[in-house]
Amino acid sequence: MSNHYSSAPSAYAYPLIIKQLLNRAKTVSTEQEIIYADKMRMSYADFFKRIAKLANVLDGLNLAHGDVVAVMDWDSHRYLESYFAVPMSQYVIQTVNIRLSPEKILYTINHAKPKVLMVNSEFAPLVKDYQFENSSIEHIIWLDDNGVSYEGVFGGNESRVIGEYEALLEQASDEFEFQDFDENTIASTFYTSGTTGDPKGVFFSHRQLVLHTLTEAASLGVLPSKQGVSFGDVYMPMTPMFHVHAWGFPFTATMIGLKQVYPGRYAPDTLMDLILNEKVSITHCVPTILQMVLGEAHKRGVDFAGLKMIIGGSRLTEGLAKAALASNIEVYTGYGMSETAPLISLSKFSTAEPEMSEEEDISRRCMTGNPVMMVDAQIWNDSDKALPHDGKQTGELVLRAPWLTQSYFKNDDAGRELWEGGYMHTADIAYMTPAGTIKITDRLKDVIKSGGEWISSLEIETILSLHPSVADVAVIGVRDEKWGERPIAAIILKPNHKDTTADDIKAVAEQAVEKGMIPKYGVPSEFKFVDELPKTSVGKHDKKAMRELFADQTGI
Amino acid sequence: MSNHYSSAPSAYAYPLIIKQLLNRAKTVSTEQEIIYADKMRMSYADFFKRIAKLANVLDGLNLAHGDVVAVMDWDSHRYLESYFAVPMSQYVIQTVNIRLSPEKILYTINHAKPKVLMVNSEFAPLVKDYQFENSSIEHIIWLDDNGVSYEGVFGGNESRVIGEYEALLEQASDEFEFQDFDENTIASTFYTSGTTGDPKGVFFSHRQLVLHTLTEAASLGVLPSKQGVSFGDVYMPMTPMFHVHAWGFPFTATMIGLKQVYPGRYAPDTLMDLILNEKVSITHCVPTILQMVLGEAHKRGVDFAGLKMIIGGSRLTEGLAKAALASNIEVYTGYGMSETAPLISLSKFSTAEPEMSEEEDISRRCMTGNPVMMVDAQIWNDSDKALPHDGKQTGELVLRAPWLTQSYFKNDDAGRELWEGGYMHTADIAYMTPAGTIKITDRLKDVIKSGGEWISSLEIETILSLHPSVADVAVIGVRDEKWGERPIAAIILKPNHKDTTADDIKAVAEQAVEKGMIPKYGVPSEFKFVDELPKTSVGKHDKKAMRELFADQTGI
Repeated sequence: MSNHYSSAPSAYAYPLIIKQLLNRAKTVSTEQEIIYADKMRMSYADFFKRIAKLANVLDGLNLAHGDVVAVMDWDSHRYLESYFAVPMSQYVIQTVNIRLSPEKILYTINHAKPKVLMVNSEFAPLVKDYQFENSSIEHIIWLDDNGVSYEGVFGGNESRVIGEYEALLEQASDEFEFQDFDENTIASTFYTSGTTGDPKGVFFSHRQLVLHTLTEAASLGVLPSKQGVSFGDVYMPMTPMFHVHAWGFPFTATMIGLKQVYPGRYAPDTLMDLILNEKVSITHCVPTILQMVLGEAHKRGVDFAGLKMIIGGSRLTEGLAKAALASNIEVYTGYGMSETAPLISLSKFSTAEPEMSEEEDISRRCMTGNPVMMVDAQIWNDSDKALPHDGKQTGELVLRAPWLTQSYFKNDDAGRELWEGGYMHTADIAYMTPAGTIKITDRLKDVIKSGGEWISSLEIETILSLHPSVADVAVIGVRDEKWGERPIAAIILKPNHKDTTADDIKAVAEQAVEKGMIPKYGVPSEFKFVDELPKTSVGKHDKKAMRELFADQTGI
Repeated sequence: MSNHYSSAPSAYAYPLIIKQLLNRAKTVSTEQEIIYADKMRMSYADFFKRIAKLANVLDGLNLAHGDVVAVMDWDSHRYLESYFAVPMSQYVIQTVNIRLSPEKILYTINHAKPKVLMVNSEFAPLVKDYQFENSSIEHIIWLDDNGVSYEGVFGGNESRVIGEYEALLEQASDEFEFQDFDENTIASTFYTSGTTGDPKGVFFSHRQLVLHTLTEAASLGVLPSKQGVSFGDVYMPMTPMFHVHAWGFPFTATMIGLKQVYPGRYAPDTLMDLILNEKVSITHCVPTILQMVLGEAHKRGVDFAGLKMIIGGSRLTEGLAKAALASNIEVYTGYGMSETAPLISLSKFSTAEPEMSEEEDISRRCMTGNPVMMVDAQIWNDSDKALPHDGKQTGELVLRAPWLTQSYFKNDDAGRELWEGGYMHTADIAYMTPAGTIKITDRLKDVIKSGGEWISSLEIETILSLHPSVADVAVIGVRDEKWGERPIAAIILKPNHKDTTADDIKAVAEQAVEKGMIPKYGVPSEFKFVDELPKTSVGKHDKKAMRELFADQTGI
């Protein structure tokens, strides 16, 4: 029957592509402001022109649709312009996580094979020894705020540099006709080092990002103005733009037409200055950054005037939530991961709140939250059966949503595992309350999250085991007020090596940092010598038992 | 390149179909309430079961996918259940506009060709003489609140009645496995009598309704809690559910998980009782209904405790807005039409409002508002060129959005005209301010909107011209405080018929009402005898000039 409902020949079928996010802002928000730290202010009208300019610059490079443009930058107006201009031109933006170890950063670039690299001059040391001649990178755009020249940085490959970003934009036309195309075209890719082995690439289509943006706006919109997003808010990211699209907020804030502030490299004084001077009212970050700005505020004797802050990436502890509320921050939890674009759940607030004690209020803010609209979240037991939402039974949190990565890039095996049974596996162990609140209780995979970045415990164990005195070693994550989690190493020394010290072992890890194999934050905070390590029934290290064992005995 | 990004075999592609709107509510809102006037209260948990029950009832009728299920009811829990169960079962819901003339109601049924008719016992007189034997309707479901039996109503066709709604649901299983299917499957259809000639059928796919729902939630969500939608709100429609999905709110409110109140047939005392007793906090209606409830409130000496109310369907006048605000109603404008599902624009409010006088505030509430997210709204001149947003130049408002009807059902010519040039033509004349606020100034088509319902002036003119004394007649709409607009007739009598009275002419219109040709509200409120009628340069009636001429000289 449905063939009766035929469309008019020139009816617009409306693909869900990123340029459509600008429709409202282009009409309503042309006077609104976008600010880059203390370096630049522009109107949305200028921003739209600059997107066209960047598109024209890229258009001059003879790229093919689907080619990758990699960006290595701190949070800037340039990054925001790339979020739009790159995918709107049918290229794929790779947001390079510059917090990984140098070795892994280069791995992600060699794996994604960008044709263009947009690189901030501050990362010159990192790319100095990079073998551009053996790389996919044909064109380099130099991003610079400090008058640093690219001369000498790229050696024999300097001819690949097409120029400095602002200089290139200045010469480009501010008109560009962005075409329509298939909404399933891939728009963005980046890498997650969440589990063992090499970083894995996730990827998202235009359709997925548009649906994520709409749902994020709806989910934060229907929170009361005190906690959610309303017209009048001022947005600033404090989760970097290379981290899962900065929670998708740059897209969402632009669609809504909010004033936006991009802080560059995160420094406590800069962040605090911008929050105060630009009247930032909504942001998101990991607990570590929250602690950083709290410290800065205490130093200055100021408070946050009701700043709304969504904590994600690591668990918000009750103590930290209490401290934030005392400093007049409306703090609460969002949950998501690289594979989920990222928004999955949010704390719930209502204009008709039930009565609750301060303790209940804080506990609610620290739970994992309720699934947002469109998300089908279930707790599965070992036989892929959904468990009841009784606030007790735990299992793996599995998901369906319109914006989940459909696999890992060139890694079919991992992709198949991710989607086993038709739901996306988070590898997080959780229960769900009768009111639909998720509480994550443990992790299936053996990883540690410190300051919002993943550390593979297996990788650290392998490195430490290279020390000749080590008979067995287990690295686990323990709760840490500042970093969320920190790795500690539990070591059994060989019988004849009992005089080996913690510093001896630590030296091995530090060498690995120097060689760029692991990031600095991968060096365990503590090395404990033990006589035995708990084992599971099948003889593996029982990390769960160790986490419980060591949770209260650490000095960190 | 994009073929590199292959999906895992069991990755869930997530079609945008109506059942997905329930994902969050099924987890988070099971205890929330849905209320049908003073007749029924149920939890969302019950509601989900009843959707399954209705699907099972329909499943027993051996319908094919794409078959139409027509609903004739006042605003009820049954209607809400049909909004979900019918399309989720891959049938098309026809929401029958029971305010049209009987002749046109039957026309819309004969045109959409439903297999199933769900009909409220209050409409028994209307269907009593309907020729079911020559109709597409094979099954009738009887909807009844008053203990009225269907015996005798359908004559020889009584065997088509499969039973009373509640009795049928009681016997049905409360489990139903709703399948996934193509998101472009048509979900709903209804008829607009906006222009001359027969009513025209618009139609919307699952994808379109999901995108409308998400954007409506986002657009109302990002308004401050004082005007927009937040968790904690209580929703009640006062625009009927047969009118453009009651502004899409039943879908939106369910997705968000709000408490919902359905008032049945609109009566001032029932509406007022429900607003007060159920603490309704958000609603939408035409100005006529607003006046009705304002009158009721004055009678009772109560106010509206900040009730949020979106006015659509007719222009909100400054006087009425002022009266509403004085009664503590947060009143403002939404714009849309049958062809647009309907949401296109909304008044804007901000948590950081610029200073404005009461007059400016009221004027803002009465403007047509700003385009909502995703909407590409332009003002076109006669040569389909977009005009600047200077607050002066007027042209036709044309649109792109993800939820516009792609044509008219079985009416390709009208569909082609609707979409001429790749944008949907609203037939509304408007200008746009530099801040992106639309102001509608006139109408391209010769229609009148009274109490939220369209009247074709051509049709009324044709009927009046049948009177032997009439030489020429023009029917125009003039502003009316109560009904928004009312038709008045300007008549030139034939030379020898100067003793014909207004009542003589009126009698012709009233006969047409009796015959079911035009609705009661189609009878002009005033009949003016004139010596000449203003003409355009090509000799047509100059309705614009007449509207201006008569605007201030009418007694209504």
